[in-house]
Amino acid sequence: MFAVQQNDSSTPARTGLLSTAHGHIETPVFMPVGSLGTVKGIDPDELQACGYGLILGNAYHLYLRPGHSLIAGQGGLHKFMQWPGAILTDSGGFQMVSLADLCRITEDGVGFKSHLDGSWHQLTPEFCMEIQVALGSDIMMMLDHCPPYPSTEFQAQEAVERTTRWAKRCLAVPRQEHQFLFGIIQGGVYPHLRQEAAAQLLELGFDGYALGGLSLGEEKETMFRVIQDVTAQLPLDRPRYLMGVGLPEDIVEGVCRGVDMFDCVIPTRHGRTGWLFTSSGRVLIKKAQYARDEAPIDSACECPVCRRYSRAYLRHLFVSNEMLGIRLNTLHNLWYYGTLMAKIRRAIRNGQLQEFRTQFYQAREGHEQGLEQDPMCA
Amino acid sequence: MFAVQQNDSSTPARTGLLSTAHGHIETPVFMPVGSLGTVKGIDPDELQACGYGLILGNAYHLYLRPGHSLIAGQGGLHKFMQWPGAILTDSGGFQMVSLADLCRITEDGVGFKSHLDGSWHQLTPEFCMEIQVALGSDIMMMLDHCPPYPSTEFQAQEAVERTTRWAKRCLAVPRQEHQFLFGIIQGGVYPHLRQEAAAQLLELGFDGYALGGLSLGEEKETMFRVIQDVTAQLPLDRPRYLMGVGLPEDIVEGVCRGVDMFDCVIPTRHGRTGWLFTSSGRVLIKKAQYARDEAPIDSACECPVCRRYSRAYLRHLFVSNEMLGIRLNTLHNLWYYGTLMAKIRRAIRNGQLQEFRTQFYQAREGHEQGLEQDPMCA
Repeated sequence: MFAVQQNDSSTPARTGLLSTAHGHIETPVFMPVGSLGTVKGIDPDELQACGYGLILGNAYHLYLRPGHSLIAGQGGLHKFMQWPGAILTDSGGFQMVSLADLCRITEDGVGFKSHLDGSWHQLTPEFCMEIQVALGSDIMMMLDHCPPYPSTEFQAQEAVERTTRWAKRCLAVPRQEHQFLFGIIQGGVYPHLRQEAAAQLLELGFDGYALGGLSLGEEKETMFRVIQDVTAQLPLDRPRYLMGVGLPEDIVEGVCRGVDMFDCVIPTRHGRTGWLFTSSGRVLIKKAQYARDEAPIDSACECPVCRRYSRAYLRHLFVSNEMLGIRLNTLHNLWYYGTLMAKIRRAIRNGQLQEFRTQFYQAREGHEQGLEQDPMCA
Repeated sequence: MFAVQQNDSSTPARTGLLSTAHGHIETPVFMPVGSLGTVKGIDPDELQACGYGLILGNAYHLYLRPGHSLIAGQGGLHKFMQWPGAILTDSGGFQMVSLADLCRITEDGVGFKSHLDGSWHQLTPEFCMEIQVALGSDIMMMLDHCPPYPSTEFQAQEAVERTTRWAKRCLAVPRQEHQFLFGIIQGGVYPHLRQEAAAQLLELGFDGYALGGLSLGEEKETMFRVIQDVTAQLPLDRPRYLMGVGLPEDIVEGVCRGVDMFDCVIPTRHGRTGWLFTSSGRVLIKKAQYARDEAPIDSACECPVCRRYSRAYLRHLFVSNEMLGIRLNTLHNLWYYGTLMAKIRRAIRNGQLQEFRTQFYQAREGHEQGLEQDPMCA
């Protein structure tokens, strides 16, 4: 399923090839989030044009709406949403905790009140697998117990132990032949718990290993330390997936610590809120300074938005709440992330990752000021 | 500017060619509405793929946001929105009356409170021309006095007389060399007032003539009678434009009464509210009956949406408030309207307009039931 292609000489970074029934994906890879069977506002052709071959779906969302059985009856999620590439489905454990009106975790599984209509649902590890089998995703995620941040050592330990017990139950569920299953390593910010969690899941054996419970509010340095420690413990021949991360700089740092896969709502959600990524930092398009700016978002960007539209037009669309603005912003950000990953892979292949990393930060120097108001990236 | 190409033998319908600085447009033509410098959610390539070469902008909206001077500074509306085709700008007289919080019409012009921030504005006929000159549209509309429906004969007469006086003032304003100016015929549902209005504008001489003040709540038969009477009075060598109309059946009937140009928010707004047009009538996509429907919106449709997506997926997107659903619905409806116009033109050219009209209605028989809840087309 996964083959490392090139190891970086100075860091644990590597390039690899992830082979699925819906295409081969070069890693390190970023996966756009399409929780409800659509990457918000963007169609499959546009996703492919941005360089994506693997996107995310979400078992929690699709179970609630339109229902996994309905999607199975339509030939599975790929066909339903007409996505020719590969799909990784998150189990939705995180969404049950963060989105549901009420959530109760027991040994059996997660009980929660739907954020849509208040109805009560119970998702066991087995049912969570069943949903993802019905969806037919290429990579399934086990149901994990993701404790909030901050958590006490005791809470974190409890979550690790429960996650391991759930991991066994998930592994016992039959999957479609093409489906891989990833384990999720919890343990909060406690090194020995992360180590314990990884060791237990490694013993069970998964197709890939994910780092869960990060980017929840802990210090960046803490997150990077956890990533570094955990990936060092993981087998070289299995993909490592850092869940829910992150900003471009987080991805660069994650890659340099041996991560192969990333997903995050940032490029899409930031597009909707008018934050645009460029090689020299972020642009908040609603600012008055762009009202008459004839330049593209990023002169160095070759995306369909930058090739055609001015900042002035994009600002007008955004302040007028025009849907096309949100769509174009999102498309630009997805292109930025797709291009960033391609550059990272090229740098690793050429043995120039450190040069890339230095240039990446140099290009942003002095540009990221005054962006403290960014609600998502403070 | 306009040349009739083929006259229908049994009705006043005709095909023609409208020649602008931004392309030649075959008539009868439907113009999608892009009030704020964007057809909501749809990009220029998609508009062209649907067969459109002429779209609408709105002086009222663009004056308020982002401002006509700003757009002029950006090289005009075409460049600002990156639309390679032609643009007709409405003067916004109708929007001032229908959208503004408060509106006071005097001989000088229209005073109104912005629907955006309550600020007070005064648009004279001259200023309205100035805005459209700054926008650089290919076809400008005079500022008219559009009385509400119903209006008394006295009110309608007053509006006609004022419109004629404003017409003179509009004609006196210098335009860019490529800009055409259309007069707007008012007169409500009163035949002698419509006749008087048309005669007065014809004497002044415009590049084209629009029928304003229709589709405001009057009976369909009344509207068709007015259209028929007025077009019979208009010169054969000038385009006739029926403003703000309408449903597919209204367009078919308008063409059969000699109308060359139409505009309406229906395909776009209906797309956003989940009403989809098909050859056999309208589909309300949110209905439960489509939850597992693997068929496209319209099996006979060759649009990018029908070629790819099922009703089940579109229903899921719509009930989940997903932006892609609104975008795809809108794209389908715009394709439907574009294709409808192409079929109408072909029928006229082939001398088969009556056959087309008969088939058009036959295909919908029995299908338009149960759609009484459509808030826009009751």
